[in-house]
Amino acid sequence: MELWYTENQTDNVKFSMRVKKTLYSKKSQFQQIDVIDTYDFGRVLVIDGWTMITEKDEFIYHEMITHVPIMVNKDIKNVLVIGAGDGGTVRELTRFNSIERIDMVELDEEVVKAAREYLPFTSCKLDDPRVNLYFQDGIKFVENKKNLYDLIIVDSTDPIGPGEGLFTREFYKNCYESLTDKGILVNQGESPYYDMNKKEMKRSNEKLKDIFPICEVYQYMIPTYPSGYWFFGFASKKLHPVNDFDEEFYNSLNLKDRYYNKDVHKASFALPNYVKELLK
Amino acid sequence: MELWYTENQTDNVKFSMRVKKTLYSKKSQFQQIDVIDTYDFGRVLVIDGWTMITEKDEFIYHEMITHVPIMVNKDIKNVLVIGAGDGGTVRELTRFNSIERIDMVELDEEVVKAAREYLPFTSCKLDDPRVNLYFQDGIKFVENKKNLYDLIIVDSTDPIGPGEGLFTREFYKNCYESLTDKGILVNQGESPYYDMNKKEMKRSNEKLKDIFPICEVYQYMIPTYPSGYWFFGFASKKLHPVNDFDEEFYNSLNLKDRYYNKDVHKASFALPNYVKELLK
Repeated sequence: MELWYTENQTDNVKFSMRVKKTLYSKKSQFQQIDVIDTYDFGRVLVIDGWTMITEKDEFIYHEMITHVPIMVNKDIKNVLVIGAGDGGTVRELTRFNSIERIDMVELDEEVVKAAREYLPFTSCKLDDPRVNLYFQDGIKFVENKKNLYDLIIVDSTDPIGPGEGLFTREFYKNCYESLTDKGILVNQGESPYYDMNKKEMKRSNEKLKDIFPICEVYQYMIPTYPSGYWFFGFASKKLHPVNDFDEEFYNSLNLKDRYYNKDVHKASFALPNYVKELLK
Repeated sequence: MELWYTENQTDNVKFSMRVKKTLYSKKSQFQQIDVIDTYDFGRVLVIDGWTMITEKDEFIYHEMITHVPIMVNKDIKNVLVIGAGDGGTVRELTRFNSIERIDMVELDEEVVKAAREYLPFTSCKLDDPRVNLYFQDGIKFVENKKNLYDLIIVDSTDPIGPGEGLFTREFYKNCYESLTDKGILVNQGESPYYDMNKKEMKRSNEKLKDIFPICEVYQYMIPTYPSGYWFFGFASKKLHPVNDFDEEFYNSLNLKDRYYNKDVHKASFALPNYVKELLK
């Protein structure tokens, strides 16, 4: 018998991975969580039928969501991470000694439990002493917080289901207030290729532009997300993601990354015309 | 009834497009050729079960295979195109008035016939007076040609089946001899993600490096190829793809491209570490 996991990427597009076995499957209070072991991608976290991360290429997502903002402000000390239950974003943040505190707010504790047991490659740094775990709604968490975080990372699912509130204007406004004066918000910014993702990418970017004076998007190529071509939003109060890239800081760290480097940093902001057109 | 076309991207990965109808299906002397009409990608050319181009995203492939070398040498006048039966590469080349002659050598006349009938969006410029069509083996065609072409574009299938000979050292050597002293060779350079493509990408790059003094690869994001993350090889006798980018020429043309622009040109050579590592 062959076992396949199929993601319905649109109504008319399917992506299928051959599965060795299912390691975990649970319906939490919020969503269906599955961890499978696959032939080509290693272990895969699937939430509500959507691929969240794979062992093969999560490094691309996690290096890009963290290293890009950090290389723009070496003084980032306090970080808020919303979502990111698999732990990969925290793993990358803990590589930087300059970071003093990481508040991670994940709605669904079951995701973290599954990650701790079945995804050690991403969850391995959740017990770092700088990390504080909160199992609550990130939308509520940022209400009434002022001038507290140098960086907020919204490492969310797509704007369907529990992740929806993390794509609203009000949430972005609260994030703005929670940020310090050189604060940066990075968010999961969807993709310009399929109609559904395209619409959300444009909407999210428009809302952020109304609130943040600097608002860009940057690309990364991750084959296991629909279209393989995905974006983060970079919204910032003062610092520009390319002009303020801190080469000296970058050189001092001697990062041994698998994806990110200084040329990739700059290149990830060079957008094809059809993407520029979409965001006009 | 739902009709789906499934590409087996590896033994363990499938990509499926929902099909409206099959427009053309023929086994030629060389290969199985199908043209289908799909819901999300428009018309799709499939050869031996592999997606060659789709109406939705062929612009990415065809702009990148042609505009990158042209922007490095505004004096390109004579071009040899090998493969490219759909006509998209020729369509892009004919946009440049500086180009005087295009020899296109396609092994399989049936591909061109199918394209002329079912893929007018790519085949539309095959009758441009500068174009000379040869239906013969590209490998033989470049033998004994000396100092003739300013640009050779190898727009081939993967190195399995009829395309295999276009990935050999001898073929590359003959291309080198066929090129003028500022000559450039651009070839379909595979992909660094799945094992099979990765091996071919490395092999092709190694062979080219032995022959050409300048040898780089550049990336483009095309969701309908396996992994969505694909490369061209840029092998050159004298000109460097980034350092010799001709900004004045670029500005003078005022191209209305959908993908390519000057930032994309430079950024396409900025490689993630895992790709650099592969090509070491």
